[in-house]
Parts: sequence; C-alpha cells; structure tokens
Amino acid sequence: MPAPGENLRIDPARLWDSLMEMAKIGPGIAGGNNRQTLTDDDARGRALFRKWCEAAGMSMGVDTMGNMFATRAGEDPDALPVYMGSHLDTQPTGGKYDGVLGVLAGLEVVRTMNDLGVKTRHPIVVTNWTNEEGTRYAPAMLASGVFAGVLEEDWAKDRVDAEGLRFGDELKRIGWEGDEQVGARKMHAMFELHIEQGPILEAEGLDIGVVTHGQGLWWLEVTLTGKDAHTGSTPMNMRVNAGLGMARITELVHRIAMENQPAAVGAIGQCNLYPNSRNVIPGKCVFTVDIRSPDQAKLDGMRARLEAEAPGIAAELGLGIEIEPVGHFDPVTFDPTCVSAVRSAAERLGYSHTDLISGAGHDACWINKVAPTAMIMCPCVDGLSHNEAEEISPEWAAAGTDVLLHAVLETAEVVG
Amino acid sequence: MPAPGENLRIDPARLWDSLMEMAKIGPGIAGGNNRQTLTDDDARGRALFRKWCEAAGMSMGVDTMGNMFATRAGEDPDALPVYMGSHLDTQPTGGKYDGVLGVLAGLEVVRTMNDLGVKTRHPIVVTNWTNEEGTRYAPAMLASGVFAGVLEEDWAKDRVDAEGLRFGDELKRIGWEGDEQVGARKMHAMFELHIEQGPILEAEGLDIGVVTHGQGLWWLEVTLTGKDAHTGSTPMNMRVNAGLGMARITELVHRIAMENQPAAVGAIGQCNLYPNSRNVIPGKCVFTVDIRSPDQAKLDGMRARLEAEAPGIAAELGLGIEIEPVGHFDPVTFDPTCVSAVRSAAERLGYSHTDLISGAGHDACWINKVAPTAMIMCPCVDGLSHNEAEEISPEWAAAGTDVLLHAVLETAEVVG
Repeated sequence: MPAPGENLRIDPARLWDSLMEMAKIGPGIAGGNNRQTLTDDDARGRALFRKWCEAAGMSMGVDTMGNMFATRAGEDPDALPVYMGSHLDTQPTGGKYDGVLGVLAGLEVVRTMNDLGVKTRHPIVVTNWTNEEGTRYAPAMLASGVFAGVLEEDWAKDRVDAEGLRFGDELKRIGWEGDEQVGARKMHAMFELHIEQGPILEAEGLDIGVVTHGQGLWWLEVTLTGKDAHTGSTPMNMRVNAGLGMARITELVHRIAMENQPAAVGAIGQCNLYPNSRNVIPGKCVFTVDIRSPDQAKLDGMRARLEAEAPGIAAELGLGIEIEPVGHFDPVTFDPTCVSAVRSAAERLGYSHTDLISGAGHDACWINKVAPTAMIMCPCVDGLSHNEAEEISPEWAAAGTDVLLHAVLETAEVVG
Repeated sequence: MPAPGENLRIDPARLWDSLMEMAKIGPGIAGGNNRQTLTDDDARGRALFRKWCEAAGMSMGVDTMGNMFATRAGEDPDALPVYMGSHLDTQPTGGKYDGVLGVLAGLEVVRTMNDLGVKTRHPIVVTNWTNEEGTRYAPAMLASGVFAGVLEEDWAKDRVDAEGLRFGDELKRIGWEGDEQVGARKMHAMFELHIEQGPILEAEGLDIGVVTHGQGLWWLEVTLTGKDAHTGSTPMNMRVNAGLGMARITELVHRIAMENQPAAVGAIGQCNLYPNSRNVIPGKCVFTVDIRSPDQAKLDGMRARLEAEAPGIAAELGLGIEIEPVGHFDPVTFDPTCVSAVRSAAERLGYSHTDLISGAGHDACWINKVAPTAMIMCPCVDGLSHNEAEEISPEWAAAGTDVLLHAVLETAEVVG
C-alpha cells in the first residue's frame, strides 16, 4: 500500500479551534473542564461532536452503551473500518485535552481528507467512548470495556453514582442510548491519540510517543492492625505501631519497583492512619500499594514479593496484616503492525519520537483485546493531567494529529 | 515527723461508690463519660463534689479560673496546706477514672481522716483543676498552667471552643468563676494520684507507680513538598514522592528514639498525604513527630538530630521540607522529698511498686514549678485511656488512694 506523502498535514488552527469550542461546554472553575459522563453537559458535547461529524459528511451510529461511531465511507464495501477515537468526558476538575484531543483529532483527520479528496479502501470511523474517566461511574473505561467483552453490559448499566443514579437511567435521560448492539462492530484497526499524562516527552523535548505497551497493574490494599496507645506513656518496646509498619512497607514497595527496572513503578498514593491523632500511636493503617509493569511475569513477581515480605515486616512489629487485591489490569502489548504504522508516520513527518509505555489505562487498552490497536502520545506541560491546569501547545496537538492522519491513511489504504 | 501506721487504710467501697456516683453525671455512649469542661454536666459534677466536701466538713474556695479548693483545717495556723487533686473534666469519649480518681481519692483521704479523727499540723486541701483535658479549650492543663504562672489568665479566658464560645464566658455561665486570685495560694506540697494511661504497671503486675519524672516533649510538624504525579505514567527517576520521604522520616524518628533509651519515645501519630488518591504520587505530606524524654539534654538532642537528618532525606528525594515546633513541654523532675514520701508509703503498705516516668502531661507537671510535687500512679486495664472503655479495678484504686493517704499524712504531719 502507498504511504501518504510527507507534505500531507492536518489544519492545526481548525483542530485548535474545535478543541477550544468543545472546552466551552462544561467549563471548570479554573480554566479546565467539568464535563462528566452522562451529565447535561456531556449531552451538549456529544451533540456538538455529532453536528461536526455530520457537517463533515459522516453518518453517526450509537450503541446501547452510548458509544458514538461517525463513519466516513470507504471504497471497498467488504473492508472493515479503521477506527480513531478516545473520549469526550472529563474528570470533575479535568483538563481540555485528556480524551478530547483523541476524538477531535479523529474529526480533523476526516476534515483534512475531505479537503484533499483523499479516498481510502477501508471506511474510517471516529469514536467517542462513553465514561472513560470513571469518576462518576467506576470503573474507568466502562463502555470500551463492555465493547471489548471485558465487562457485562447489564452490570455496567447498574453502576450508580454518588447520588444513587443508575448509569443506564442517566444514559437514557440524556438521550444517548443508541440501538446498536455493543461490540457487534468489527474493526480493521484502531488508533488512539492521547496526551501523555506523564513527564517524559516534554523532559526529553520529543514530539511523539510511539506507545508499544500498556502497564499492567495491581492495586493491593494493605491493612495493618496494631494497638492504639498513648505516645507518651507507652515505652518503645511495648508499642504495636501500625504507622511504622506502613513506613517500612512503603520502603519495600519502592525497593521492589527499583529492582524491576526498566519500566516498573510502585508507590503508595493513598494512606490513612487511625485514629490519626498527634499523641496516639496508630493502631491501624490502611493504604493502597500501586505496582505496575508492562511485563506480566515481572508484575506478578512484584506482587508475589510484596505478599512474601510485607508479612515479615508486620510480624517483626507485632502487627496483624491483610493484603487484598482491589484493582488489576493485565499488561497490554499493542499490535506491532499498528505500532509500526505510528512509528513510520512520525519518521516520515520528521517528528522526533520515542517508544513509550502507557502508564495509565486508556480505551485503547481494552480495544486491543478485540482489534489491532495502537496509541500515539503527545507531550503535556509538566506531565500534568486530571487537573484543570492541564496544558498542551497547538504544535504538540498538530504533530500528534499529523501522525494519526498518516498512520490511519497507511492502514486504511489510500486509493485513486 | 511520725509515719502513719501500716494498718491505716482508706475505705475502698466508699471510694468506689463515689467514683460510680460521679460517673452518672455526663454519661458517655459506651460506658464512659462525656463531661467536658464548662458544660452543664461539668457544673453538676462540681456541685456534687462541693456537696461531698462540705459534708466532710471542708470549706470550699474557688479562684477566677474555676479551680476548686476544699480545705480541711490543720492545727498550725502558720503551716501551708498540703494539696491533693486532679481534674473532674473528661474527654468527649472519656473514661470514668482519668482525673476523677485523683480528686475523689483526695476526698476519700479526708473522709478516712475524719473517721479516725486524725489531725495534722498542715491543713489539707482537695483540688479540682479546671480544663485539664484541653479538648474543648486547648491547650490541656489550662487552669493549672495559669495557677503556675506558665499561662496568662486573660489569654486563657479568651480561648474559644469549636462553636466560638469563650472560656471566660462559659465559666461565668455555669456559675463557677470564683473570686480568689489564681495562683495566690501557696502550697507546702501537692500530690496527684492518676491512672497510668500506659501499660507498664499492669504488664509487670505492680500496684503502684512512683512517678519520679515527667517526659519532656517536642511536637514537630513536618511538611514535605514534592509533586503530584500519575503513579502509572511517571517513571521512578522522575518522581518527587512526599510519601516516601514521610516513610523514611518515620524510620528516622524510630531510630532516634531507640538510640536514646532508656525512657525516650518517638512516633508519628498524625499524618496526611495529599491528594491521598490511589493513582497519584503524593505531592505533599504533613505529619507530626512526637518525641519525648525525661532528660532535657537528650530531648533537645533528639530534636536537633531530627532537624539535622530529615532535610538530608528530603533533599535526596528532591523534596522541600519545613519543620515547625507546634508543642513543647520541658521535662519535669518531681520533688525528691515528695517522691520519697510516695515510695515510703508504698513500701510501708506492702504494695509492689516501681519508679515511673509520666509520659503524658498532668496538672502536677505545672504545679511542680511552684510547689514541691509528686505523682502516684495506679494501673489501668490494657493501658487504655481517653476511651470510654478505660477501666481499673477497685483494688487498684484503693491501693493508689492508700498510698496517697500515707504520703499526705507524712507530709502534713500527724499530730496528737
């Protein structure tokens, strides 16, 4: 198949205008967005996206999970479509680009193809996956998970938000429950452009991350049980200090991650002492260990080592310990052909790039289970995301979208 | 001066009945008490105590901080009184004995003296110090602190509770602002019986703690500043993890305490991670280091070592650090003659005993600045206090009160 010419580029100003226009819907309080899934603002964002897609000559399909699929026809009636997309929902104090860039970049790719009259053998579909963020309805990547057969649709629709409102009811209420069967669509390939949400590309001054893998993850909730006691009147040798146990396990988690380099990570982000009083030795501590690796064997080895060594730390201090898995993703290996298309596109366009491992979960991680998939990342300022201060430059957005354009055109096969 | 005979004992049943009667005022929700300072229940408890004191032939004086002084006359009009006492106020979820035992044991000592017609050269005074607990009005030991000249009366009266009510106004409202000038009374000596609030006596099967010292204390609030970042997409070498810094300083505090044995202690009871989310590397951690030693030089050395080594731990991780003292007591050395009177009393009565260091603050720690003072401790179950489940046995209470009786009689000089 012919590769698109290196002079083929998207329209950076149009892309940026669309990002800024979408950001007006569900504004945050500090320059970002609060456009959580299945809210009235989510419905307004979806309607704007549909209007833009229809104006670009695409037809819109919606499945029963509210996933949106805007199709640009291909030349071969038997060819499966090439998908692009991400999500339009945001965190409650989210940024303007997390997810949104991947959807509107897909739209910009189609607009550019329209401008130039480019035809492809495979149809092209731009997708908005429902509830990627998972803050209103846990877990994250809910609707792409149902699409990929990882989660049950009935179960997903029974999720409730903090006010007790069901996902299924809210999806109906905002008018975006479609009639397509979820997951019935077959894909030739799927590409997701996303901001890095990490510091590597900016720190290294690179334009493009070629995402080869997604981190596998274990969240292990650890409960240490000691004994509340007065910090003054309890001698050191009579203490059963859950806080000291937590400190030692924090160090263990760090050591395990450092000994599984490259690419492994480990930290404790959430930790609560009880009773959390200045003059009481903590009788209980509950914290969550987050360990990740792109390598399944390493990931499981990290978990096994924590489960082997943490009880010894607890026993030495006289503490009770329980370790409970509360979250898990398998590592993801993206499709080598799709990854190669991304890398070739960056090369051809002259963008500096590096292979990256996605540390966060994305819709593409689920879709990779049912279709050849790859991700493209562009830098974000200071690695900051899930924050209204999240920022990217128009140039970064344009470079990522150029690479998306080229990877998609190569995969969808330009004809004529 | 003649020592009282070993057959001289208090009435254990009467003491216990009074403890149980007082515990009916301001009952807790789980078998203990909520009789916080300057509440209506505090006023009822004070009234009952006054009624009992007057029935025992004592006259009641009240100072402008609400401290109560019930006097049993002595034989020598020029002799300064020997004081006994503690506090009747409780924690919001407090026990029936913390403080209360020391006041009602004083009353029982006088009742026993009345039964037996014992006369002393020095007058004897039973005291209830206002607001020892400090939960409604911080700091703890407020009114004994004013009495000892450590705190200013005007400042103390301007303290406000969580609802904005002034200490001075509430003291007036419950009708217990007296007219005596605070601190004008001079003391020959002062004895405070208190439950240990620690595990040593019970664990060692001992009846009596002879308190020789009070721990000096530094509370150091440490703020570590790193950088919030995604636990998945931030490589280990790009993290600035405030939680890891906290863990290392927790270990440092433990090490410093262990290297300053005997008697030194150190722990972190209160610790908050920010944003405290499972998938965010903590960008900030605020925690309070509690270090104590009965030795001033050691205590200051412990603080100096923390302040010298913690910044290095922070720097190695790229963290900002601030260390702010937020609480301090100098170590207390109780009066050797009073301490000796307590030890002799335990010996004479055949009670097993050990020298103890008070880990917690008590009214006696302040009064020791203005009068020869000592403390007697009795065991409490499991070292538990500041908890409605706080428990002691009638035998423990009786032994402590017997020792109080003998120490006071020796100090007040039995005549005739």
